[in-house]
Amino acid sequence: MIKAGIIGASGYTGIELLRLLLQHPQAEVVAVSARTFNGKRVGAVFPALAQHCQLVFCTADDDKFKQCDVVFFATPHGVAMQSAAAFINQGIKVIDLGADFRIRDKKQWEQAYSMAHTQPQLLSQAVYGLTELNRDAIKKSNLIANPGCYPTAVQLALKPLLENNLIDPNNIIADCKSGLSGAGRNAATALLLCEASESFKAYSVKSHRHFYEMKQQLEIMANGTVGLTFVPHLVPMIRGIFATIYVDLLDSTTDVQAIFAKEYADERFVTLLESGVYPQTRHVKNSNFCQISLQKMPHSNKLVILSTIDNLVKGASGQAVQNMNAIFALEENLGLAQSAAIP
Amino acid sequence: MIKAGIIGASGYTGIELLRLLLQHPQAEVVAVSARTFNGKRVGAVFPALAQHCQLVFCTADDDKFKQCDVVFFATPHGVAMQSAAAFINQGIKVIDLGADFRIRDKKQWEQAYSMAHTQPQLLSQAVYGLTELNRDAIKKSNLIANPGCYPTAVQLALKPLLENNLIDPNNIIADCKSGLSGAGRNAATALLLCEASESFKAYSVKSHRHFYEMKQQLEIMANGTVGLTFVPHLVPMIRGIFATIYVDLLDSTTDVQAIFAKEYADERFVTLLESGVYPQTRHVKNSNFCQISLQKMPHSNKLVILSTIDNLVKGASGQAVQNMNAIFALEENLGLAQSAAIP
Amino acid sequence: MIKAGIIGASGYTGIELLRLLLQHPQAEVVAVSARTFNGKRVGAVFPALAQHCQLVFCTADDDKFKQCDVVFFATPHGVAMQSAAAFINQGIKVIDLGADFRIRDKKQWEQAYSMAHTQPQLLSQAVYGLTELNRDAIKKSNLIANPGCYPTAVQLALKPLLENNLIDPNNIIADCKSGLSGAGRNAATALLLCEASESFKAYSVKSHRHFYEMKQQLEIMANGTVGLTFVPHLVPMIRGIFATIYVDLLDSTTDVQAIFAKEYADERFVTLLESGVYPQTRHVKNSNFCQISLQKMPHSNKLVILSTIDNLVKGASGQAVQNMNAIFALEENLGLAQSAAIP
Amino acid sequence: MIKAGIIGASGYTGIELLRLLLQHPQAEVVAVSARTFNGKRVGAVFPALAQHCQLVFCTADDDKFKQCDVVFFATPHGVAMQSAAAFINQGIKVIDLGADFRIRDKKQWEQAYSMAHTQPQLLSQAVYGLTELNRDAIKKSNLIANPGCYPTAVQLALKPLLENNLIDPNNIIADCKSGLSGAGRNAATALLLCEASESFKAYSVKSHRHFYEMKQQLEIMANGTVGLTFVPHLVPMIRGIFATIYVDLLDSTTDVQAIFAKEYADERFVTLLESGVYPQTRHVKNSNFCQISLQKMPHSNKLVILSTIDNLVKGASGQAVQNMNAIFALEENLGLAQSAAIP
Repeated sequence: MIKAGIIGASGYTGIELLRLLLQHPQAEVVAVSARTFNGKRVGAVFPALAQHCQLVFCTADDDKFKQCDVVFFATPHGVAMQSAAAFINQGIKVIDLGADFRIRDKKQWEQAYSMAHTQPQLLSQAVYGLTELNRDAIKKSNLIANPGCYPTAVQLALKPLLENNLIDPNNIIADCKSGLSGAGRNAATALLLCEASESFKAYSVKSHRHFYEMKQQLEIMANGTVGLTFVPHLVPMIRGIFATIYVDLLDSTTDVQAIFAKEYADERFVTLLESGVYPQTRHVKNSNFCQISLQKMPHSNKLVILSTIDNLVKGASGQAVQNMNAIFALEENLGLAQSAAIP
Repeated sequence: MIKAGIIGASGYTGIELLRLLLQHPQAEVVAVSARTFNGKRVGAVFPALAQHCQLVFCTADDDKFKQCDVVFFATPHGVAMQSAAAFINQGIKVIDLGADFRIRDKKQWEQAYSMAHTQPQLLSQAVYGLTELNRDAIKKSNLIANPGCYPTAVQLALKPLLENNLIDPNNIIADCKSGLSGAGRNAATALLLCEASESFKAYSVKSHRHFYEMKQQLEIMANGTVGLTFVPHLVPMIRGIFATIYVDLLDSTTDVQAIFAKEYADERFVTLLESGVYPQTRHVKNSNFCQISLQKMPHSNKLVILSTIDNLVKGASGQAVQNMNAIFALEENLGLAQSAAIP
Repeated sequence: MIKAGIIGASGYTGIELLRLLLQHPQAEVVAVSARTFNGKRVGAVFPALAQHCQLVFCTADDDKFKQCDVVFFATPHGVAMQSAAAFINQGIKVIDLGADFRIRDKKQWEQAYSMAHTQPQLLSQAVYGLTELNRDAIKKSNLIANPGCYPTAVQLALKPLLENNLIDPNNIIADCKSGLSGAGRNAATALLLCEASESFKAYSVKSHRHFYEMKQQLEIMANGTVGLTFVPHLVPMIRGIFATIYVDLLDSTTDVQAIFAKEYADERFVTLLESGVYPQTRHVKNSNFCQISLQKMPHSNKLVILSTIDNLVKGASGQAVQNMNAIFALEENLGLAQSAAIP
Repeated sequence: MIKAGIIGASGYTGIELLRLLLQHPQAEVVAVSARTFNGKRVGAVFPALAQHCQLVFCTADDDKFKQCDVVFFATPHGVAMQSAAAFINQGIKVIDLGADFRIRDKKQWEQAYSMAHTQPQLLSQAVYGLTELNRDAIKKSNLIANPGCYPTAVQLALKPLLENNLIDPNNIIADCKSGLSGAGRNAATALLLCEASESFKAYSVKSHRHFYEMKQQLEIMANGTVGLTFVPHLVPMIRGIFATIYVDLLDSTTDVQAIFAKEYADERFVTLLESGVYPQTRHVKNSNFCQISLQKMPHSNKLVILSTIDNLVKGASGQAVQNMNAIFALEENLGLAQSAAIP
């Protein structure tokens, strides 16, 4: 049994990670921290887990974390960087669901997150944890930078195209839509049911933090500069990310369906839909799957790629478990086989 | 491995049953029928199961059902009664998620369902499948009448009170609220998002079919006549039943909290909440749990019981699996241990 | 033109009152206060009003309020009592949408609201502003205690029964359901879309502040003591109250439909539905109407009354305008004739 | 008083038109047809209008329509073309909320709508009813082709740019999102609350009927060919359209904010938001307003235009009333001044 600890277990990604690990046959959660709830039973704070978990919230400096094989950080940016090295030095694997190690360039990171990065040496050490992209490196790593939710949906949609030089890298548009859980468990007016339901809006249009992460990764795939426009929106629902991506095919006769089919043939969590079938966020809700659809537009060289994930699973905690499975040489879908419920 | 078949697998209870059985470690689904989708892959009709199920919908008379150990009917009333006996005679267990065998009295059944019951001899043979009530009989039965969703929530809330003669049986009010999936996968105007969201209503106020089932069962528990008022309502959400039940305690000093605690001490799926903590449907969503809370009202002998379940799980398909586990002498929570997701 | 001021215009009842007054042909809003937004344009804080209102938020002590004919308080309890007298002494009518003057008995008020009432002399001076109950007194009053949302729905449902002594006053159950706007514009975790949507719950089961107001008013109607059980619930929607009320008819042959029809024949805002037709909150959304339906239950003397209003209109700001119309001798439905939108 | 008739008054655009006309001070609705509800009171079918309308549904050939000054068609395509000419010949103005006269080219129309157009002579006679574009022609017209919902949001967003030749016309992307009421009052499985809530999806990706209308109109504005990519999506809410439009500025230093401000300075229903403020569908819900925001993207010549309307008001019935006001020389916002409700 892998002994796991979760630092910051009371946010949405933290508690989702706990839920997933509780049903993982090879993992045992031994410590969960949450400053606000220190000393309280998990089941008292989250009644959905009343029958599933006897753990009590502790603080992040609790000794129980030192007995772990792997520690997950589900914390706001700026937290994981402070103690990741100490865990790594004790031989404990670290998987950061936050943003501290996602951007390799210190300046870019600081521009995106408006604070100083105090552990720049870890930026190069960390492996970017998009499993489908970096599986081999992940298996050998001590420190995983688990990807952001939007970047996960967008990268899986563009990887086969960029790596094979099939599109114009200078004109990529990612129009992305997210459920509200992506904004976290924050008591903010704008996230109230009365303010957010029965409405749709864009936000952070000029610049969103994930833009930098996305651009870095797409440029790695393209092996060159990309011109990216990214606009995020909020959908009145709890979970789900839907990315509608517009690119220009260099050759409009390219059989993109075949190229994606080949690329993802052995991937358990990426489902390429048949031509003409489009994804819906509900079909991946609560699951670790990404569903992708391709549509060539008539009378132009535009290709529209539709990509959907659950932002808290494949976009956060599920992918973290997938990475844990890779690190500990387990079947990659262990504990992650569940489907979305219908309806 | 238990070989299972589902007749009527394309409705909400049928497809939920399929989802639960697919993740059951001791069950294998060998046949799923759905007239409308005959010949189509399950994953093509329900993309959420694209990676989880390679089955193809067949018709109800397919020979594959004859190889089953258990056949589930997830059909409208009037269907199961026609072929249940044939399966039973071949040594196949039958669990009916529909209403055909829930009411013992033929006349009462016919009044409730406005059609003739053609197999009255099965009414006495069937065991009413509220596992917490009839566990021993279920284990020995060939034919299970899986309870209705409202009756499940209400019975679990009243069982300790009625069996111990603690309340006035003549003045029981069950004000019940359900998500829309309780109305099934019917393309009806009243169930459209545009008509049902952002609204709340009562329906079937004068008489709902579940009234007869509920009254029968409460009278068995009370060992006498009960006076029941039942009003169902529709909540603008997908899943969940919430019952607010008003009764008069015969002795207002009775320690009802202790009595419920004792009653359900060994039940895996019934959670008695601490005094002052009230249930929410989201805490049991997608799970087989029932959460119950008790509140004595000040200045009167009224007791309010709050009881919540997921109508498609403990209120239908989950309880059907629980009964299957009982029949085949498995751990009762096998395949049913999942919690609700947060959020 | 009636000059109106709104103190506390940034909460949901305050801003709804502003919206209604902006479209009122005989009212002109001259001052709106909101501590948080002092100095900001209304349209900048609430873009829905960008084209409808050029007002700037001021503070509650702004001189503009002294020029008003009527001042509305849309404030938390404890605020209106401090300055109501000063306005009244200047000949300005005061309508309090908060709770400061709803309960006549000082001790009861203090029990309900857990604070001292500093202006008890106003409690007897205030007229309880359920227009259908106290129209004549309202017309002559300087100080209106605008009713709570739940009490409005419940009183309109019980008035004809209690005033005519048709029911047992000792066994009244009001199972009430409200949209989330009833909880106000508070950035509380429990009110987030992620926590409240796709869920249903009861709250304040043991005791809710409106209980005292409701009991006081029902006892006035009954001219005697009543035994009331009131349980409020939260529905995952923005607006609407739905009350399901259970009473025992003293004579089950009473023609309650006729009695209600007579009672409300001349009321513009109370609609008695035909027998067998049940109300839905969406049919009164954004409107000042109350829709009521009556259902006698078979085989018992139970009568179920269903009553629905928009909590922010007939349950708050609309009724405040209705009272203003009464005070200033205008047509009672002036500015309030709008229907709910479909869908 | 303008005598108005509505043919097809039971769909969402028809009933919304009725609601708007009922509160219009210069209009009187004298006839409403709906085949399904012939002979029924409007208030019985739509209880929200119980107190507002004593009309009875008739059939489309009822003589009452011949007494009208204006007849609105709120019918599926193919209906209005059959009888529009007869009304026009009797001197009755016709406003078609359907699609029969939106596309000038017969072949294009037939390609978009997959049926023959039997009255091609009316195609050139009809005036396209985007009031802000064709006001003068509308005032003189007998036959108005009321625009589609998506095309309204997109045209208002692009008009100042295309007419002033500020963008590359060959690379326009309109990523549009709509509430479900856009799909009409159809009892389709995909529109059920259980299937559509808590989910987001794209649809008609390859080709949507509004594409042809949009392209025609943008090319009129551009006075040349445009390259348009249009992808519609469904948002789990009732009302609202949100268009996110991506274009390439020819000169990235253009002061687009100033150009839009000038263009729409005198338009009552188009609100240009301050730079950095983004629209939300709830701010225009139930109202005839369009809110537009502009965002130049850093490091590129991309301009993102955000445009939102209520699909049933400015996107259909409200614009129809606006056109009626124009035709009959009334104030253009008569009966249309209402704001969205908050919340």
